[in-house]
Amino acid sequence: MILHYPNGKPYKPTEQKKERKQQSLTYSNRGMTLEEDINVTNQYYLDNEIAVIHKKPTPIQIVNVDYPRRSAAVIKEAYFKQSSTTDYNGIYNGKYIDFEAKETKNNTSFPLQNFHEHQITHMKNVKNQGGICFVILSAFSSYYLLEAEHLFTFWNRQASGGRKSITKNEIDDFAHIIPTSYQARIDYLKIIDKLYF
Amino acid sequence: MILHYPNGKPYKPTEQKKERKQQSLTYSNRGMTLEEDINVTNQYYLDNEIAVIHKKPTPIQIVNVDYPRRSAAVIKEAYFKQSSTTDYNGIYNGKYIDFEAKETKNNTSFPLQNFHEHQITHMKNVKNQGGICFVILSAFSSYYLLEAEHLFTFWNRQASGGRKSITKNEIDDFAHIIPTSYQARIDYLKIIDKLYF
Repeated sequence: MILHYPNGKPYKPTEQKKERKQQSLTYSNRGMTLEEDINVTNQYYLDNEIAVIHKKPTPIQIVNVDYPRRSAAVIKEAYFKQSSTTDYNGIYNGKYIDFEAKETKNNTSFPLQNFHEHQITHMKNVKNQGGICFVILSAFSSYYLLEAEHLFTFWNRQASGGRKSITKNEIDDFAHIIPTSYQARIDYLKIIDKLYF
Repeated sequence: MILHYPNGKPYKPTEQKKERKQQSLTYSNRGMTLEEDINVTNQYYLDNEIAVIHKKPTPIQIVNVDYPRRSAAVIKEAYFKQSSTTDYNGIYNGKYIDFEAKETKNNTSFPLQNFHEHQITHMKNVKNQGGICFVILSAFSSYYLLEAEHLFTFWNRQASGGRKSITKNEIDDFAHIIPTSYQARIDYLKIIDKLYF
């Protein structure tokens, strides 16, 4: 028996399953949920004229482009590049905002391998210019805001032979739990208000 | 007679010509020179701790990715997307900086079709948050900095049925010629210093 949707289209369960499997393969390990929640939050800030903060596009090295028509270029070969900055920046109430978002499934600590040397360098440059810089950590079933200064401390500890992660206790001590709501899913500017305004 | 480079590799003039032609086809009409000059300038600002300003990556819609190994993802099908913001942003001396760069070969005016409605909207949002926002125009053999407020005026004139471009005279009146030097090829922060500091 062939099932039909109200619009008359036949229901094809096997084909749909195949599509879903391919999608989850393609986007696995890219932290889409954290990214999506931040994007929704930033859109809420934008729509309500609270702040103008965007995620930067993923940097791509384009090798081969096909131009069948002038209006329709198709990229046929390209590679992911490592970003030289953080993923998010913008302006809030006259202040420059710059941050990176990372998550861990680890229950006891946040591994520092989530960050790269050039991102730390970028954050230091931003701080030197007087910007507001931090990381959003998704860990231990919460969202945390950790100011860049504290991240630098843990990074330096690692560089001088210390532990390669931030313990849960340290995050409880130095980071701020970010409130969540339906519209501002990760309402990080609430923390920025407390810290800087 | 086959010519050789000092390292022993043969000199192949025809092959090189072919490569160059292909490159100019692929990147035609993308304003690489203006972009390159701004990138060199921004790198100079970064290296000398003057400012942290980067070009955002080109936004790409990725459709198909091949993962032969985990470490080597190859994008096999992707498309250029229209950006919802300007191309450049960052921080200078505590201030948020946001701008777009465009060029024209036109000798008498700068066509407004170089800008898109959503870019104007973004610039207005940035101004509302207290940011410094402008456009760099490459036109009439010079580089100009035009503050966003003035661009809005010309944009509104077009929206109410007026001319679709900014005349050379108007640019002479409202924009600022950007000084150039070997290291800071388009030294736009010199103008920002005069206007905002």
